[in-house]
Amino acid sequence: MGDSKYVIGVDFGTLSGRAVIVDVANGEELATAVYEYRNGVIDEVLPGTDIHLEPDWALQDPNDYIDVFKNSIPIVLSESGVDAADVIGIGIDFTACTMLPTKADGTPLCFLPEWRNNPHAWVKLWKHHAAQPEANKLNSIAREKGFGEILDRYGGKISSEWFFPKVWQILDEAPEVYEEADRLLEAADWVIWQLTGIETRNSCTAGYKAMWSKTEGFPPDEFFRALDPRMENIVQEKMMREISPLGSKAGELTEEAAGWTGLNPGTAVAVANVDAHVSVPAATVTEPGRMVMIMGTSICHMVLGEQEQIVPGMCGVVEDGILPDMPGFEAGQSCVGDHFQWFIENCVPAGYEEEAESLGVSIHTLLEEKARNLKPGQSGLLALDWWNGNRSVLVDVDLTGMLLGATLLTRPEEIFRALIEATAYGTRIIIETFNQNGVPTNELIATGGLPDRNKLLMQIYADVTGLPIYVAEATQIGALGSAMHAAVAAGAKSGGYDNINEATVAMAQLRDEHYEPIPENKKVYDKLYTEYVILHDYFGRGENNVMKRLKALKLEMMNG
Amino acid sequence: MGDSKYVIGVDFGTLSGRAVIVDVANGEELATAVYEYRNGVIDEVLPGTDIHLEPDWALQDPNDYIDVFKNSIPIVLSESGVDAADVIGIGIDFTACTMLPTKADGTPLCFLPEWRNNPHAWVKLWKHHAAQPEANKLNSIAREKGFGEILDRYGGKISSEWFFPKVWQILDEAPEVYEEADRLLEAADWVIWQLTGIETRNSCTAGYKAMWSKTEGFPPDEFFRALDPRMENIVQEKMMREISPLGSKAGELTEEAAGWTGLNPGTAVAVANVDAHVSVPAATVTEPGRMVMIMGTSICHMVLGEQEQIVPGMCGVVEDGILPDMPGFEAGQSCVGDHFQWFIENCVPAGYEEEAESLGVSIHTLLEEKARNLKPGQSGLLALDWWNGNRSVLVDVDLTGMLLGATLLTRPEEIFRALIEATAYGTRIIIETFNQNGVPTNELIATGGLPDRNKLLMQIYADVTGLPIYVAEATQIGALGSAMHAAVAAGAKSGGYDNINEATVAMAQLRDEHYEPIPENKKVYDKLYTEYVILHDYFGRGENNVMKRLKALKLEMMNG
Repeated sequence: MGDSKYVIGVDFGTLSGRAVIVDVANGEELATAVYEYRNGVIDEVLPGTDIHLEPDWALQDPNDYIDVFKNSIPIVLSESGVDAADVIGIGIDFTACTMLPTKADGTPLCFLPEWRNNPHAWVKLWKHHAAQPEANKLNSIAREKGFGEILDRYGGKISSEWFFPKVWQILDEAPEVYEEADRLLEAADWVIWQLTGIETRNSCTAGYKAMWSKTEGFPPDEFFRALDPRMENIVQEKMMREISPLGSKAGELTEEAAGWTGLNPGTAVAVANVDAHVSVPAATVTEPGRMVMIMGTSICHMVLGEQEQIVPGMCGVVEDGILPDMPGFEAGQSCVGDHFQWFIENCVPAGYEEEAESLGVSIHTLLEEKARNLKPGQSGLLALDWWNGNRSVLVDVDLTGMLLGATLLTRPEEIFRALIEATAYGTRIIIETFNQNGVPTNELIATGGLPDRNKLLMQIYADVTGLPIYVAEATQIGALGSAMHAAVAAGAKSGGYDNINEATVAMAQLRDEHYEPIPENKKVYDKLYTEYVILHDYFGRGENNVMKRLKALKLEMMNG
Repeated sequence: MGDSKYVIGVDFGTLSGRAVIVDVANGEELATAVYEYRNGVIDEVLPGTDIHLEPDWALQDPNDYIDVFKNSIPIVLSESGVDAADVIGIGIDFTACTMLPTKADGTPLCFLPEWRNNPHAWVKLWKHHAAQPEANKLNSIAREKGFGEILDRYGGKISSEWFFPKVWQILDEAPEVYEEADRLLEAADWVIWQLTGIETRNSCTAGYKAMWSKTEGFPPDEFFRALDPRMENIVQEKMMREISPLGSKAGELTEEAAGWTGLNPGTAVAVANVDAHVSVPAATVTEPGRMVMIMGTSICHMVLGEQEQIVPGMCGVVEDGILPDMPGFEAGQSCVGDHFQWFIENCVPAGYEEEAESLGVSIHTLLEEKARNLKPGQSGLLALDWWNGNRSVLVDVDLTGMLLGATLLTRPEEIFRALIEATAYGTRIIIETFNQNGVPTNELIATGGLPDRNKLLMQIYADVTGLPIYVAEATQIGALGSAMHAAVAAGAKSGGYDNINEATVAMAQLRDEHYEPIPENKKVYDKLYTEYVILHDYFGRGENNVMKRLKALKLEMMNG
């Protein structure tokens, strides 16, 4: 292997962690290993107890994160045959906001016997949705008390998934846990702390999930006092005000962490990052105008801007949030792959299952084949893609799905195609909203699980948006992005890179295959999109709040 | 059998004819026999030729109707053991408008070798939809030229299924057939002609399908001249202006027809009737306030009024159209049983099919069981029941179906229930429209195929409408109604009845089982109905014509 240098990226997902070892010179992936969390997503019973969790709860066990290091890094080292001495850095990315309370030395409260039986002592996973009451209070108080500008950086609303609603839920329901916590932090930063012995906070989670901005810092004490007097000093007492830029070096691997991983002590460790955000440079993007779509169960849309702008309905804009010294914008659709999965599980007749079996293909493939034979507009169907609410641009979890145009001749593949098209319209409305607010997009870069096995979907997205779509080469895009940030943390002096732009040029690639809009399809989709927007605004912007009223009635009937 | 007297009713459906023999004293059905038309619905190739029909065509062969008499009446006589001498009358009901051109002696043009290869010489079945251009022209010309009041008796529009659009299509496309036709008439009247040798025209089809009214007769010659100068004299030349009231005697069975049937020559034959309309007295209804719903693939709503009223969206109001000397109102929903069948064929996953099989029940039963466990409003779903357009009260075939409120947790039985509920809202809006226009309904009488095996649906209809629903005893409601009219045609002197009211009291029954609205369900459905009406009006009354635009685009894409 001679002079070659390597970096390791570890991507912490919802159910497992994945390590890759990558050649610094060209980003080539030499080996990968996955470790499934032993306790997975804790949403029913607290491990080792008979304590049942309430609906909407989702916890994790911090031990599982350490076990990822122990059970994946030795494997990629051994499988690749790389000498630990040639590994110049390690980086990680995580789900967010996934947060926990710890002692001053970083010990999670849930590791302490006296707190272990308290669910609030554990990690609250990103999809813990039980802090909605706190999110609602936060949003209305912020607006009332003159802190609306902070909300505007987040599309006008703070999500229940984010940091301070989760913290506030701890304070509301377990003030003793809040009291006992010396630190409240992202699991992303916590694992870096475990690797290096040094507490850091990364600018990405701070900015996107904890309302921090490079120019203003965290919201002022008066903001927190307005929420709850007991939270007035939270920033001084439990946060860390020094926020580290992405790609910077958090520290070096401790002896203990070196022992877990088989890496050398002193190996550079990059500041933590978030899965979606770290994917942007891994998808070759370091400049404005090229939107990255991380396409899986949902879609994250990430785009860089020239300057900070308020874009209605975005999830957030954060300087240093994706790349140093640039505002990074995030938007999202909460139901994409999930949508198709729902359809396949609930709406595909037995005959199709038999046909797929006899052809030796999946139902998904069969549906895609049948849907491919339809022309745009031919089904007469139009859907609103809100089966899981609307993240961008309406930021409304209470919106629901709609399908219109059905006749007695409507076939499953027509509905399937209409659902794909609806998600494409949802992406177009995000792109257009950014365009209209000074953040243009000229091309799309796709990554994630969907592009590989959904060529029809990709073409429809190109046709609907009118933009070319490129596909990132890496299949483990998050882990590659983390590895790239490790190379930057190590720096050029150690065989890495001085900045993420250089790392991107060397390590990130696009595939040859790409999707160009087909003009005649685009023309039809322009008409359909016009209809989509009318319905989007009618149902989504308050003209007819039937979806919300039905949802309220549904809750009433389920509880009553 | 002693002094007992019997009547025979023959119900001509879309695919078959059904005869029943009934005890005049109490309406008891002694035997029934079905004969399937040999040529069925002719919608692809003209029999005995290689002439392909265009889309939307649907023809029938008049020979099949005669064969119904030959192949069913002898069976019911023999199975019941009734002596032909004790059969005092025969009556029939038919689909409508199902019409044909004949010579002056009643010979159908399609029986003549020189016309047999011309599709326009055959019977145009009710669901022949190829006369839409003529219907469109008729409606706009009538409105322009001051004949709008005639249209108002039919909800504002004449359907392409009705008599004069079909006649006009013959004239447009085959003027030589139009020219050759000495008579243009309903198949219903044609079969009575064949039984009796006497040409009659019944007030029901004349009124509901051929724009005739008791006070005004057929539209004036100027109306037809405005449509097409060649049609100016159609009424004098090809129609019959003497219209016979329902239950009157058309004539007596000829020797020839007696030979076909095994009945005695001279047996009384009632004037023809229509399947839906003849069902009203058979469902015990001879007075205003009690709406009959004939529930099958679609629903026909029939109600009697105190006086002729214009009700928006009704299919028609005709004095003498259902019962003598009373205005009979008809409305309809074009997609009910069809809706559920579509859902079962296209939207039910394989797992449900397996579950139904393992339980030994039909998928329909399984879905109903699962849907029964849901409370009103619990699914959060709301649908517009327009999978086959909207007949009443919007009279718009270009409207399409909509489902709203779907989430990733939505289950097939929830959608199934939402579709049932949507059809119930559709019925409620019809009832309310009649109420608001001076034609009140206090209770519902159900008949047709649905009530027997859809108890959940029946309860939902009661809960949504807030009205009790009774179910007619007879399973062959049309045939019973025809038999009752036969008893009236025979008259009291022959052992029958002097009028349909007397026949109804004696021969028509309701079941003991009935459905009462459940107040707590009604309360929830009132809320959901309010939402339904908002969407109904938004999509159906022109505020957002997205459904029509999508349909137009669909046609463009399919043809282009």
